Amino acid sequence: MMVGVFFTKGHGTSNDFVILPDPDGELDLTPALVAALCDRRRGIGGDGVLRVVRSAKHPAGAGHAAEAEWFMDYWNSDGSIAEMCGNGVRVFARYLIANDLATPGPAGLPVATRAGVMTAVVEGETIRVRMSTPRTYAGSTATIGALTIPGLAVDCGNPHLVCGLHDGVQLAGLDLTTAPLVDKALFSSGVNVEFVEAAEDLPGVDKHVRMRVHERGSGETMSCGTGALAVGAVALREAGLTSGSVAVDVLGGRLVITCDESGAWWLAGPAVLVASGETDLVALS
Amino acid sequence: MMVGVFFTKGHGTSNDFVILPDPDGELDLTPALVAALCDRRRGIGGDGVLRVVRSAKHPAGAGHAAEAEWFMDYWNSDGSIAEMCGNGVRVFARYLIANDLATPGPAGLPVATRAGVMTAVVEGETIRVRMSTPRTYAGSTATIGALTIPGLAVDCGNPHLVCGLHDGVQLAGLDLTTAPLVDKALFSSGVNVEFVEAAEDLPGVDKHVRMRVHERGSGETMSCGTGALAVGAVALREAGLTSGSVAVDVLGGRLVITCDESGAWWLAGPAVLVASGETDLVALS
Repeated sequence: MMVGVFFTKGHGTSNDFVILPDPDGELDLTPALVAALCDRRRGIGGDGVLRVVRSAKHPAGAGHAAEAEWFMDYWNSDGSIAEMCGNGVRVFARYLIANDLATPGPAGLPVATRAGVMTAVVEGETIRVRMSTPRTYAGSTATIGALTIPGLAVDCGNPHLVCGLHDGVQLAGLDLTTAPLVDKALFSSGVNVEFVEAAEDLPGVDKHVRMRVHERGSGETMSCGTGALAVGAVALREAGLTSGSVAVDVLGGRLVITCDESGAWWLAGPAVLVASGETDLVALS
Repeated sequence: MMVGVFFTKGHGTSNDFVILPDPDGELDLTPALVAALCDRRRGIGGDGVLRVVRSAKHPAGAGHAAEAEWFMDYWNSDGSIAEMCGNGVRVFARYLIANDLATPGPAGLPVATRAGVMTAVVEGETIRVRMSTPRTYAGSTATIGALTIPGLAVDCGNPHLVCGLHDGVQLAGLDLTTAPLVDKALFSSGVNVEFVEAAEDLPGVDKHVRMRVHERGSGETMSCGTGALAVGAVALREAGLTSGSVAVDVLGGRLVITCDESGAWWLAGPAVLVASGETDLVALS
């Protein structure tokens, strides 16, 4: 016996997702099923699940149905629900367009999420998504072994600590196999720590940096959308710019953070659909 | 533009594979493409690729075409070619049967590999495969931190060191994040090291053990077919049995090693197909 469910697998700078089309919200998605789907050896594998539901058909999306036809029901790979994921919205928008489920308007493509309606703009292979405004609020430090690095705390909806490297310390040489030590009073809910070094000038952007990130609960990851946002905000601030764009190279590729003339912040990068097919829920369980 | 290739994903005790149907051997499989397919975030993800080719259509299979219709063209996830993989043959046989490409005869289902023709026997959810005879050839030790554990070297076509735990040492407590230290003269090409503890009696088998394995080149893995064979051989030998069966619990599930009355050795366990679909080679590259 087989119980088939259609899926697509996609990623944005190696942040990868199992996309489940479920327009009428009929799929009985449970934490156990999400974890089984995201299992990289016994399932399809992903950092999370993006269920594609009509906003009107999902309790958390119904209030946005007039603005956004589709609701991104995002689940982490451990089966917990998260409000938002910047790379997730970019991949979700790619899926809608590739499957003719939505056509971007002049103002972009609205996507309903638990954090409100996000706007995605498609520019060829790049998809950018409007992010909330990052807020720098404190100085602090991160310690790795004998190395203590000063940084800035940035609130992007979730907490970040952006630490610039100086004095010959190389990004590639950092050991991020264990969590950097941080001020537990300042970061009582944990913090995502970004380490940043300058990179060569690039045409079309004001700054270019490389970063590695240690995410709370996950360890070092290939990419982090809000982490790139925090790093971009600090880079513009240090350059004395109130608007502009920063290329942020993560291990999984290149993201570009832009603060436009209106003060709106954007996360841009590739969003790729890799495979589509049918999975057997009986084989997963 | 999209260049589609059909695939199935399957696993045996969490040893997972991307299966590519290519009956006429027309697919231009390269190390780079294999690595891209096996990438767990930017591809489909797997420990290796099993290409399904008619033996007559593959240079390495043509000599076996009279005995086995299908050739398992096995590639490791890094793009290198391997001769054989016990769990791979089990999953390969499951694929052939599920897709009506082969029907097992009274003597089982023959599968051509670079190591010769293997025989798979399907017993419901379990598929067992005939393995080469394991050969115990030396005593040695493995050292983890301050702990040195005696063991037996076993040749299963590849080298193994099987170390039984005693004196209250717990399997679950071992730190296998780094390679155990071994005798480099004895194991000049490296060795897979298995740690074993006794488990509760089970009906239908003569012995029941739990193992963890550190594979050369891969680190700790969820399952290792030849590792389970080596462990089963040592367990039977220690029980003074020349034939019989041993249940070997690996992190990814349960394998059963049997030496039958004729002296033939078998590896048995589940083989599951999880998903099927089409991947886009353009998106992978």
